[in-house]
Amino acid sequence: MSEAPIGVFDSGVGGLTVLRALLSELPHEKFIYLGDTARLPYGTKSPESVTRYAAQAAAALADRALKCLVVACNTASASSLPAMRERLPGVLVVGVIEPGAQAACEASPTGRIAVIATEGTVQGRAYQEAILRRRGDARIQAMATPLFVALAEEGLVSGPIALGVARHYLAALSQAASDAPDTLVLGCTHFPMLAGVIRAALGERMRIVDSAATTAKEVRQRLEGAGLARRAGASAVRFLASDGAERFARVGSRFLARTIAPADVELIDL
Amino acid sequence: MSEAPIGVFDSGVGGLTVLRALLSELPHEKFIYLGDTARLPYGTKSPESVTRYAAQAAAALADRALKCLVVACNTASASSLPAMRERLPGVLVVGVIEPGAQAACEASPTGRIAVIATEGTVQGRAYQEAILRRRGDARIQAMATPLFVALAEEGLVSGPIALGVARHYLAALSQAASDAPDTLVLGCTHFPMLAGVIRAALGERMRIVDSAATTAKEVRQRLEGAGLARRAGASAVRFLASDGAERFARVGSRFLARTIAPADVELIDL
Repeated sequence: MSEAPIGVFDSGVGGLTVLRALLSELPHEKFIYLGDTARLPYGTKSPESVTRYAAQAAAALADRALKCLVVACNTASASSLPAMRERLPGVLVVGVIEPGAQAACEASPTGRIAVIATEGTVQGRAYQEAILRRRGDARIQAMATPLFVALAEEGLVSGPIALGVARHYLAALSQAASDAPDTLVLGCTHFPMLAGVIRAALGERMRIVDSAATTAKEVRQRLEGAGLARRAGASAVRFLASDGAERFARVGSRFLARTIAPADVELIDL
Repeated sequence: MSEAPIGVFDSGVGGLTVLRALLSELPHEKFIYLGDTARLPYGTKSPESVTRYAAQAAAALADRALKCLVVACNTASASSLPAMRERLPGVLVVGVIEPGAQAACEASPTGRIAVIATEGTVQGRAYQEAILRRRGDARIQAMATPLFVALAEEGLVSGPIALGVARHYLAALSQAASDAPDTLVLGCTHFPMLAGVIRAALGERMRIVDSAATTAKEVRQRLEGAGLARRAGASAVRFLASDGAERFARVGSRFLARTIAPADVELIDL
């Protein structure tokens, strides 16, 4: 069973930041990455639509004999884990919200935590609730920052425009007010790409929690705990996408920080 | 038959800029606007997927007894008019590409024409081909400007960030070189929202063709020519969307420049 692959699911290429963290944390595993590029983005869609799409993706992965499925998409993690677990009995299904919320609670001295995410993730309140379950006195400020997604996809992640957008969104968080948050959760897979300008806009004092890195740690611990981690051998990755192999390869290469060839991307119908 | 409604189809709310132009050009008509918000954006998806979605939308409109369907989405206009016409026999189906190309050819003294659009529209080369059919000696520069879409949806259409993005994309067009284009086509429904910063980035000499306005004129002429225009009475609009009535109303109100209430948006399954 430890030889079985780990699935990574996202609405598009953003989850490749999570795959990148997983490859670093678990260097001996085989991964199958599925991006639902035909229907991205999930972040502006209703929970009902996202759950229908995520369940279809889980069904498409059901015959791949996964040992674990990492739901890298924050929006799907917020709304659709039960529907995906139902279609993957016996598979460990891990989302990105709970590890991110846990890491934020551990990082924050005061419990004043800001979350930036897509509209869907913010309105679904999954981060807010996951943080409050761990820390009832937390004061949470959640904010949708959709331009970060477009900037990351465009590869415009540094320079005056990216910094201007970061300041536009984050000015309210960086002020020296006594009730300002001390910890920021990057609650969207695209945002680690912009970590540089986010840090520049916020200053050094803010603790930044990257849910990709925290989720990869959680997956490693759970696989090791269950005796399911692969202990030797090279890693391998297969890419599946529901549309646009060329764009997946081009934009995805930036997110994964390694070259993906269009021929390596298998198109599947969800 | 002149009492029948005009359908307006788009992948989301962007086509409301076309509806706005239609309401101004044809103030006595009844409109049914359909936004496929469950599957937006079309601009980054393959022509096969876009055609499948557009054909489903046409099928959903087939029992509404339309006299005309305006395909406000540039991406769908580029790839999917034949598939939509097939599902709407007897209905006048008008896309935005041909009117925009015609207006650009009329506006440009030199035939040096730039087109900005989504990735899908640029790669599909529909504007390039429509311009070259009318003017074989045209020299066309086409460029994807996806951040404009995100800025328009966010309502960030003026100020330093929007102007910075406009300059980032358009600097190459505004130079005084002797072979610089003299005409720019706004080949995406979102871009009229950014006309101010686009104009500021390009200077006064550039002729700017807005395909929403040119399409509305074309629709009026064709309806009048066929004796199908409604000559009196108030206009009316019904809104259909495949997902997210609240977001449709909120973001769409900016695009239409009049308030849409969430309760006015009927959700339909495509």
